[in-house]
Amino acid sequence: MPELAFEDLTPGRVFDLGTITVDRDEMIAFARRFDPQPFHLDDEAGKNSIFGDLAASGWFTASLWMRAYADGVLLRATSIASPGGEEIRWPAPVFGGDTLTATLEILDARRSRSRPELGLVTLGARLHRDDTLVYSARFTGMFGLREPATPS
Amino acid sequence: MPELAFEDLTPGRVFDLGTITVDRDEMIAFARRFDPQPFHLDDEAGKNSIFGDLAASGWFTASLWMRAYADGVLLRATSIASPGGEEIRWPAPVFGGDTLTATLEILDARRSRSRPELGLVTLGARLHRDDTLVYSARFTGMFGLREPATPS
Repeated sequence: MPELAFEDLTPGRVFDLGTITVDRDEMIAFARRFDPQPFHLDDEAGKNSIFGDLAASGWFTASLWMRAYADGVLLRATSIASPGGEEIRWPAPVFGGDTLTATLEILDARRSRSRPELGLVTLGARLHRDDTLVYSARFTGMFGLREPATPS
Repeated sequence: MPELAFEDLTPGRVFDLGTITVDRDEMIAFARRFDPQPFHLDDEAGKNSIFGDLAASGWFTASLWMRAYADGVLLRATSIASPGGEEIRWPAPVFGGDTLTATLEILDARRSRSRPELGLVTLGARLHRDDTLVYSARFTGMFGLREPATPS
């Protein structure tokens, strides 16, 4: 049994997922493959954009958070899957060389009615650069229970 | 002026973004870097998971759609940025070798009150494998206007 089961993911609990340094070369390579808009690829286009400098694709930022979440929580948890989420936000741009602080907050947790062996957890994702929030998301994770439901 | 401006993104308009074949090696490489859960990396773990086979990270799937959207719309549009979205869904797993059909639907469009030079467009993203929806998202795009607002 992994260390973290549904029962451990209690609303209000916050997990520190550590810090991430944004690798400029990887950021650009990601954009070239998945989001090749000029302001994600080229310094001059970045400076002339709303971002004010060459900025990360939001999907790269989301993927960086995902990795921190996998390392910090999922790989030691009874993770089953995620059906999706209700919110994803990129309130400020991310730049190459940024150091971002990653957290996960447990927002809600309930046992599944249709599948009593698992629980549904509402998860709050956040990345900050200093005091600036650069990414947030709210989504659902399915986790196995430590103690299976007893038949009633 | 790019071919597509805010005025062209009218609610109800659907863009065919073409088909995507999921490269199994790239799918696994993405998971190894950003979402290293066993069922995204290993055939046996995939078969024993809720997915029934080695499945793509949802962030890889989202990124594949993003590329199709960039190629089909953004790179010929007055795209400025996206502040985020209200919904992201992975209703069915994606597997290596899948052929996915990508679409974009314009769900809503309104001019910004605070920044009259741009419009806010609500975008509906979808990926299907045959008749099965495997990815959907609803998010906002900011686009420049073809005709700047006339001072009143």
